[in-house]
Amino acid sequence: MSSLVQYADASPEVRAVYDDIMATRGVADVNNFWKALAVHPPTLARTWESLRQVMAPGALDPLTKEMLYLAASAAAGCEYCVASHTAAAKARGMTGAMHGELLAILGMAAETNRLAETLRVPVDDAFR
Amino acid sequence: MSSLVQYADASPEVRAVYDDIMATRGVADVNNFWKALAVHPPTLARTWESLRQVMAPGALDPLTKEMLYLAASAAAGCEYCVASHTAAAKARGMTGAMHGELLAILGMAAETNRLAETLRVPVDDAFR
Amino acid sequence: MSSLVQYADASPEVRAVYDDIMATRGVADVNNFWKALAVHPPTLARTWESLRQVMAPGALDPLTKEMLYLAASAAAGCEYCVASHTAAAKARGMTGAMHGELLAILGMAAETNRLAETLRVPVDDAFR
Amino acid sequence: MSSLVQYADASPEVRAVYDDIMATRGVADVNNFWKALAVHPPTLARTWESLRQVMAPGALDPLTKEMLYLAASAAAGCEYCVASHTAAAKARGMTGAMHGELLAILGMAAETNRLAETLRVPVDDAFR
Amino acid sequence: MSSLVQYADASPEVRAVYDDIMATRGVADVNNFWKALAVHPPTLARTWESLRQVMAPGALDPLTKEMLYLAASAAAGCEYCVASHTAAAKARGMTGAMHGELLAILGMAAETNRLAETLRVPVDDAFR
Amino acid sequence: MSSLVQYADASPEVRAVYDDIMATRGVADVNNFWKALAVHPPTLARTWESLRQVMAPGALDPLTKEMLYLAASAAAGCEYCVASHTAAAKARGMTGAMHGELLAILGMAAETNRLAETLRVPVDDAFR
Repeated sequence: MSSLVQYADASPEVRAVYDDIMATRGVADVNNFWKALAVHPPTLARTWESLRQVMAPGALDPLTKEMLYLAASAAAGCEYCVASHTAAAKARGMTGAMHGELLAILGMAAETNRLAETLRVPVDDAFR
Repeated sequence: MSSLVQYADASPEVRAVYDDIMATRGVADVNNFWKALAVHPPTLARTWESLRQVMAPGALDPLTKEMLYLAASAAAGCEYCVASHTAAAKARGMTGAMHGELLAILGMAAETNRLAETLRVPVDDAFR
Repeated sequence: MSSLVQYADASPEVRAVYDDIMATRGVADVNNFWKALAVHPPTLARTWESLRQVMAPGALDPLTKEMLYLAASAAAGCEYCVASHTAAAKARGMTGAMHGELLAILGMAAETNRLAETLRVPVDDAFR
Repeated sequence: MSSLVQYADASPEVRAVYDDIMATRGVADVNNFWKALAVHPPTLARTWESLRQVMAPGALDPLTKEMLYLAASAAAGCEYCVASHTAAAKARGMTGAMHGELLAILGMAAETNRLAETLRVPVDDAFR
Repeated sequence: MSSLVQYADASPEVRAVYDDIMATRGVADVNNFWKALAVHPPTLARTWESLRQVMAPGALDPLTKEMLYLAASAAAGCEYCVASHTAAAKARGMTGAMHGELLAILGMAAETNRLAETLRVPVDDAFR
Repeated sequence: MSSLVQYADASPEVRAVYDDIMATRGVADVNNFWKALAVHPPTLARTWESLRQVMAPGALDPLTKEMLYLAASAAAGCEYCVASHTAAAKARGMTGAMHGELLAILGMAAETNRLAETLRVPVDDAFR
């Protein structure tokens, strides 16, 4: 398990990123993901800057963005990411019923993905 | 590449599923996925029945459901599924801007999933 | 796409492996997999030696072994391997009905794998 | 980690599924997988109905079906599923020697899958 | 298959990225990856900026960086990425012998990864 | 979690492998991976023999080989393997700065792999 860099022990370079995360999100501390990433400050700074841009409101609303992030993380099997993005999606309004339907989609996608791959189904002309 | 069962060559059992898919979706033919799955009629019937239930309108709207399916399929690396669900999401209203933001989320999720897994980040108490 | 080393162009070291594969399997040529692997003769020789040992008759019969290999390859999404092990399993007696049931298991496993992972289900004491 | 719905706390809809699982399998309680899935009763009911159909005796015997499920689950990296299907396969007669050979196949499939994919080996005409 | 944005058809925003890629790499055109990514200019710009930073010379030399990128891409099963980073690694000095040894490592890693995961091997205290 | 075969309880066949691992590596005990693999002695012996050959010095130096193994293991999501090969790479000279750059490459590879796959980017003629 990775070591976590707490704010009190962080370099000024790392603290600046933590400060920006806390200010942007309106929270009093950063998640363990960022504390672990602080082992390599350039990656911490670059990853946060990218995530901030990608998750900013745009053509997709924040809840939809969080649920898409959750779906992609679940399909990739990342336990930490499923936990953190489930919490974030709930904070943005994902109800139990929505969570249940998302879960059902994840299951069906896994099944049909496997079947389509195993059968090596040729892509329909209409999809090109 | 799998062999595809065309309507004209299908058994009554398979035709009944094709008919239900076409009626439910209001289309004149079924996608190659179903024609490939017809190699095993019980799996064809069960998979369609499940998909019909899962993708029916509910707490999540049809466009959001299609985009979640697309996100999960992309994260699982299924080329056929990415092609078919991209087409389906566009048919339900996914614009180019929405598609671009979805793409950006897929990329960032892949990166942060890999980083969180490699660093073996402990799940925050707040997420439990 | 990789270059393939044909028998006529192969070094004596590579030919010796090809000869052993053809003799063991009673075939007149080796599959493209081996011709591609010949780009690195030590890996060709080691991989064949390992595969020969692993697929030899044992507590599991040859057909079951081929179907297990096919199931693992399909779950890993290897298109070449699905094609080659489907052919090998059919040559050892896998019928259309068996293939259909295998396909159904692959689909259900994908779905329940994804659900169990996403829900982070704790392992039952009875399984330990 | 997901919350588990115990029988005593379950709705009649969920209890009906639990009852059917226990009766079909001749067991006194259901595994954690089902208790976690009960967070979304429609997915619980549909998944059980599908699994019941897929794992029923057919052209493949129950032990072979369980070992195929185990192989697919291991290749997909699902820890819970490996644990549960290893237990189920042992209950249906998988010996230590069979388990060892299955393990060896899983390892070799992983290696050759990776090699075939990385080398982008063209599928042999004979496999089409 | 995605549509590719050629330089002649690109917006000034996209051309600026293409120009920077060509200048940094000393090439006369950009690879298809960038032409496909141009469908979403913000993702094109951000991805190039990140890649430029990550692949710049540092504690690791350029050839080692390319081989690590290739190893990660092969393990993730990305055909395009394996093709592009194999070419890039060769351009930086990867010989046939080095490529062969890399291939052998990829195969063994896949095998031992699968075995360690399936056996759920507890992490040694010495590794913590 | 798997059971571990300690030296004191091992058969002569297993002890011979353990002895060879300890002698080759100059260590006083073998890692848990080998103790778990001892459940199937033929797989233990074959896997060790293969690993010994693959990781021997060659065209690539031992540190580069360990980092490539680590990159492939991280991309495959094997927690045990990431832990063991991180320790091994550090023992061979991987510094904190090198580790940080490797981490950054892993993240970027994951992102660009996903983007290239989702966009189904056609392989450039120059890479063939």
